[in-house]
Amino acid sequence: MSLPLEVISQLQALLGDRFSLAKAVRDQHGRDESPYPEIAPDAVAFAWTNEEVAGVVQLCNAHRVPVVAYGAGSSLEGHVLAIQGGICLDLSHMNAILELAPDDFLVTVQAGVLRKQLNQEIKNQGLFFPVDPGADATIGGMCATRASGTNAVRYGTMRENVVALTVVTSSGKIIRVGSRARKSAAGYDLTRLLIGSEGTLGVITEITLKLYPLPEAISAATCVFPSVSAAVQAVIAIIQYGIPIARVELVDETAITAINHYSKLSLEQKPTLFFEFHGSPLGVQEQSENTQAICAEYSGSGFEWSANPEDRTRLWQARHNAYYACLQLQAGARILNTDICVPISKLAYCIDRARDLLSQSYLKSAILGHVGDGNFHALIIIDPNRVEDMQEAERLNHCIVQDALSVGGTCTGEHGVGMHKIQFMLQEHGADAIECMRAIKAVFDPNNILNPGKMLPAQPL
Amino acid sequence: MSLPLEVISQLQALLGDRFSLAKAVRDQHGRDESPYPEIAPDAVAFAWTNEEVAGVVQLCNAHRVPVVAYGAGSSLEGHVLAIQGGICLDLSHMNAILELAPDDFLVTVQAGVLRKQLNQEIKNQGLFFPVDPGADATIGGMCATRASGTNAVRYGTMRENVVALTVVTSSGKIIRVGSRARKSAAGYDLTRLLIGSEGTLGVITEITLKLYPLPEAISAATCVFPSVSAAVQAVIAIIQYGIPIARVELVDETAITAINHYSKLSLEQKPTLFFEFHGSPLGVQEQSENTQAICAEYSGSGFEWSANPEDRTRLWQARHNAYYACLQLQAGARILNTDICVPISKLAYCIDRARDLLSQSYLKSAILGHVGDGNFHALIIIDPNRVEDMQEAERLNHCIVQDALSVGGTCTGEHGVGMHKIQFMLQEHGADAIECMRAIKAVFDPNNILNPGKMLPAQPL
Repeated sequence: MSLPLEVISQLQALLGDRFSLAKAVRDQHGRDESPYPEIAPDAVAFAWTNEEVAGVVQLCNAHRVPVVAYGAGSSLEGHVLAIQGGICLDLSHMNAILELAPDDFLVTVQAGVLRKQLNQEIKNQGLFFPVDPGADATIGGMCATRASGTNAVRYGTMRENVVALTVVTSSGKIIRVGSRARKSAAGYDLTRLLIGSEGTLGVITEITLKLYPLPEAISAATCVFPSVSAAVQAVIAIIQYGIPIARVELVDETAITAINHYSKLSLEQKPTLFFEFHGSPLGVQEQSENTQAICAEYSGSGFEWSANPEDRTRLWQARHNAYYACLQLQAGARILNTDICVPISKLAYCIDRARDLLSQSYLKSAILGHVGDGNFHALIIIDPNRVEDMQEAERLNHCIVQDALSVGGTCTGEHGVGMHKIQFMLQEHGADAIECMRAIKAVFDPNNILNPGKMLPAQPL
Repeated sequence: MSLPLEVISQLQALLGDRFSLAKAVRDQHGRDESPYPEIAPDAVAFAWTNEEVAGVVQLCNAHRVPVVAYGAGSSLEGHVLAIQGGICLDLSHMNAILELAPDDFLVTVQAGVLRKQLNQEIKNQGLFFPVDPGADATIGGMCATRASGTNAVRYGTMRENVVALTVVTSSGKIIRVGSRARKSAAGYDLTRLLIGSEGTLGVITEITLKLYPLPEAISAATCVFPSVSAAVQAVIAIIQYGIPIARVELVDETAITAINHYSKLSLEQKPTLFFEFHGSPLGVQEQSENTQAICAEYSGSGFEWSANPEDRTRLWQARHNAYYACLQLQAGARILNTDICVPISKLAYCIDRARDLLSQSYLKSAILGHVGDGNFHALIIIDPNRVEDMQEAERLNHCIVQDALSVGGTCTGEHGVGMHKIQFMLQEHGADAIECMRAIKAVFDPNNILNPGKMLPAQPL
């Protein structure tokens, strides 16, 4: 679409040179970290305040112009691509920490605050925010996609760690949902309805988050296993035993190989678990010893642990580098990242099935897993300029998702639906639940201007 | 209202003698544990299956007859009173544990399963379900009210501990929301929207819950403080220190006095904290020692702890008996229970204000607090036959809620809104958020048959 002239002139009046029609700016906002080709918006609006966001959305609503909220552009699923044109509403300048309340273990931030920035600014208060998707995403984007990361097994996802939001509705109202209380039984949970709504119900502009005390002691460990299945069984036993692991990540032997190549290491090329323990010095030592004993029962070997920060970094380096190591497997590559999450007892089955499948494809791939949650990623390496690579990767993803759905799992554990998982929504939720979702969308956004075409499958004709 | 004859005959055909018009049965379903007078439904339908629930709701929807779902009748807020008449849909016979999946730490139950029954049936698997409201409520009712209890500081509330639901919609469809995955980023969070919806959006019939391994070791402790404020400051410091307390409960000196009288004990009549620690034997010892040290910094004294089950019971007995001890303060009494939840740094302020206020009233009262969450209850003792008692108790509750709202808290931490907190909803959430809630209600229940008159304030004329 092309923008109505009145919209252009009013946005220029509202935002001055923070409203841009320049191709370079639009192009920059037309892609994310997904393998989709660039789809640029018609214009980019950089908002600084809630009122400006409200002004932009109200105007767009009046003129039926799509609005796509934009943070760090780190979506893996095409969330921010302007597939129906319209305005990209860039919130990255709304990056102030509005109020830190250490005694309440709460912080209120603007949506454009980056997660690393937040942790940097609160660490001298002895606090941290645990949710850590791979990218240095914005808190607003993490809310919109219901993000999680490596700590979710202990600290939960964005679902569990937000107490209140400020949201601009499609009609341009600035509303507040939730409260500063850590729990409430007062009315429908609008906060949770907006978390994970991917910019389709409102534009999240401010977030009040739960914080946690920095652990007194942290220790890390790694352990190699003869098979993925043995590693997953060990994790089930560790959780059953009640060990409060903060992180447990699986890296398969293909990813280890990539890492060895990327980082000039010589790690044993076997499925490996990476652990992190939080607690008192005595506590983390005990957790580590118990974990080692359980790993040994499942043929885990080479258990190595350390409470020393440098050694911890060394142990975890392979995990941290895995994504980039896999990107380096092929020049100019991008990654199509699968994201299923299944009941943990089905995880070994699903990973084994995925590995069989992937091993028969001409595309390279590796597997990383947040195994404590039952969530894993197959990183499928593609040349984004080759249509057949994309098709083959989609075929693989489709098969992997079918396995997840067949055992009661979900097509996306933490990356969200975006453009990429819409095809599975009906199958995963059923027609009646999708109908409920559509009805909610119609209530919040009757003109379908908020990130249109994302998350929900198109209405049947 | 009186029921249409066609509804009566069709429900008789559907349920046989499980449909009752008998006064005794109706009266039994016309009250809960709130101080409200009895308001009986026109009839009671005992459902055994999802299909029967769907049949009842569909029929009632066609004839615009209200449907109030009913479990254990343990609401404190009048949730189950049939204030607009209609059918009480009793789910207490739907009390089967449908599927226990110990390796997934999941269980699927029917809505009528009681929480103690559930824990009894899973404990030999080494598992437990932590959410523990005072009453032996049904899991369905706990979902509907977004219940929590003494363990929420460590394990969360119903909001955090449900992964999937089966729900009968107002049109009589049986829908499933959520999945068996522990986390998901696929679409609007219908599960969380239904948790806490108090039977106004659908009838919850089946629930898939997260379970936890029984702790290897449990220890308990008590400690007395010179003031409520000192006790609360100690709790903030304990959380800041990162001690993963499983429970921390405050009992004020009035409640201790009541308990001494009730249980023939001679506890020191001072504000007292009750702790429970879960972990390894070494871990709980360390948690207890660190807690004692912090309590001492805040003038806590008489710290007593034990890992022995009998001694733990003895230590916690006062807390367990507090509600019933307070009921015994006056013959024939009932309790109006306040339920505010505030940011933890404001808890001492709010409790102090409440105590000042309560001390000036002619009604007796005591305070119990889930202090780790910022949630406390003033138990106000009333004679339910004296209108002036009820009015005075409401006045006190009103003042206490105003304090909570003034510091960003909520009128109800865990008991829900029911009939009793409707008056605060607009003030707590604001007109725009209430409008969103009303719009959602209209989508899910266009004929307003599901627990009408509860939770949401009436539409302005």
